[in-house]
Amino acid sequence: MSVYLNDRFIENNEATLHVSDLSMQRGYAIFDFMRTLNGVPLFIDDYLNRFYASAETMRFTVNKNRKELSDIIYELIKRSGLNEAGVRLMLTGGYSPDSYTPSEPNLLITCNPVKTATTEDFEKGFSIITHEHQRELPQVKSINYLTAVWLQPLLKEKQANDVLYYNKESITEFPRSNVFIITDKNILVTPSKNILKGITRKQILSLASEMMEAEERNITIEELLNAKEVFSTATTRRLIPVIKINNKAVGNGEPGVFTKKLYKEFLNLEKSLAYLVSR
Amino acid sequence: MSVYLNDRFIENNEATLHVSDLSMQRGYAIFDFMRTLNGVPLFIDDYLNRFYASAETMRFTVNKNRKELSDIIYELIKRSGLNEAGVRLMLTGGYSPDSYTPSEPNLLITCNPVKTATTEDFEKGFSIITHEHQRELPQVKSINYLTAVWLQPLLKEKQANDVLYYNKESITEFPRSNVFIITDKNILVTPSKNILKGITRKQILSLASEMMEAEERNITIEELLNAKEVFSTATTRRLIPVIKINNKAVGNGEPGVFTKKLYKEFLNLEKSLAYLVSR
Repeated sequence: MSVYLNDRFIENNEATLHVSDLSMQRGYAIFDFMRTLNGVPLFIDDYLNRFYASAETMRFTVNKNRKELSDIIYELIKRSGLNEAGVRLMLTGGYSPDSYTPSEPNLLITCNPVKTATTEDFEKGFSIITHEHQRELPQVKSINYLTAVWLQPLLKEKQANDVLYYNKESITEFPRSNVFIITDKNILVTPSKNILKGITRKQILSLASEMMEAEERNITIEELLNAKEVFSTATTRRLIPVIKINNKAVGNGEPGVFTKKLYKEFLNLEKSLAYLVSR
Repeated sequence: MSVYLNDRFIENNEATLHVSDLSMQRGYAIFDFMRTLNGVPLFIDDYLNRFYASAETMRFTVNKNRKELSDIIYELIKRSGLNEAGVRLMLTGGYSPDSYTPSEPNLLITCNPVKTATTEDFEKGFSIITHEHQRELPQVKSINYLTAVWLQPLLKEKQANDVLYYNKESITEFPRSNVFIITDKNILVTPSKNILKGITRKQILSLASEMMEAEERNITIEELLNAKEVFSTATTRRLIPVIKINNKAVGNGEPGVFTKKLYKEFLNLEKSLAYLVSR
């Protein structure tokens, strides 16, 4: 499987960085992650937009324009021979002279097989727990998942599939995914502050706007617990119903009507993109 | 300069990790950093204690006992030929199969030239600013310095040497160093919660106990701003007076009496260790 590092394609086993890189010295790096279907990188413009935005906030210079990044990504997908793949772009603080000051960034792009959620995963839904935590620089897709990785054994212990963060009284996001609720008035709501704005989140908001009222605003834990439907969105997850929160069932404990409808619409959207674009 | 990786000594240019390591995927790694004088790793027992404690909290297995780690460190110092060096131990989440789940840790130990604060740095003192931030898992020396590195341009803009974090109304620590104050009653105080407990901090508390009252407790921002003396402690910094906070002078804007005395005592302590042990 081939990889792109800074200015050339290399083999996967060469995809290494020296330990002086600021990603390893100080966890200072960003990444982004998109998925392909039928060899087409879905929503690539949105992912590249976010990648450049993360880089700008971190004060990283991206030495490639959108056309160049896009060409590299398409070439990696072609070389991989994969119909469904995960493309990861990473930009680090570079080889730091004093292990603290950022230097010229290292750019690393990989294309690997990806496991996406299945229809069975959708039917089964997720059991989740809540945890008070606020990600640093939440609008940036940084590599900092310290709390998330550290919480993994707790998830196992609680037999939960994921953990939803909250900040004071407001829910924010999952470590790698966004949250939506459907209120008793059939309004779709998702948090707008202190989160990373997901690309699937954006697409779901757009699809929902055709069929129902949708709002981006603060959601309290209480409102979450009283929601008719709750679901989570992410690149590899697409849309997964949340059927249990802290051991209490959401609604009747089954995937809800709106959740099902949005899921179907999203599958249609990605298929239309994958098979339309590739022709 | 030679490096130790997992089970062998390698050259510095070979000190690389594959990008699938959880340090680069998810910022999941710990480290520790000690300093040598006259070839002696100062307070090595304290640093190894903290390294093992960080590893335990992160649920990493250290495949080396204290004797083995210590032997490797002494060998690296010998090979470096340096009288004053910085020894960095790093333990990562390992090569993760799914870029999220920890695997067998990678252990990397380096020994490099180190720049320590000089007497001139001490005399000049530090100008600092304050910033609201709480490190995740503060008791662990993780590689997460996202906010710290991100704040560097702000420090330049404010012509400040460092930034002191606070959590709600209480001061906690600098990104890489601890904080102490001397109250108007000549009591030495340092925060005890939500911080990484520094080795220099420990030694200063021990030295101070011979000459004055010392307390580990909560310190409000107001108490900080009214302190007679303020200083910062760290491995390469030793002890540096804080002479200005958010542009307001501390005391008369000069290094204070107790700060000077503790600094002198600390220099004596490290010399006695370095030259006693090496004989």
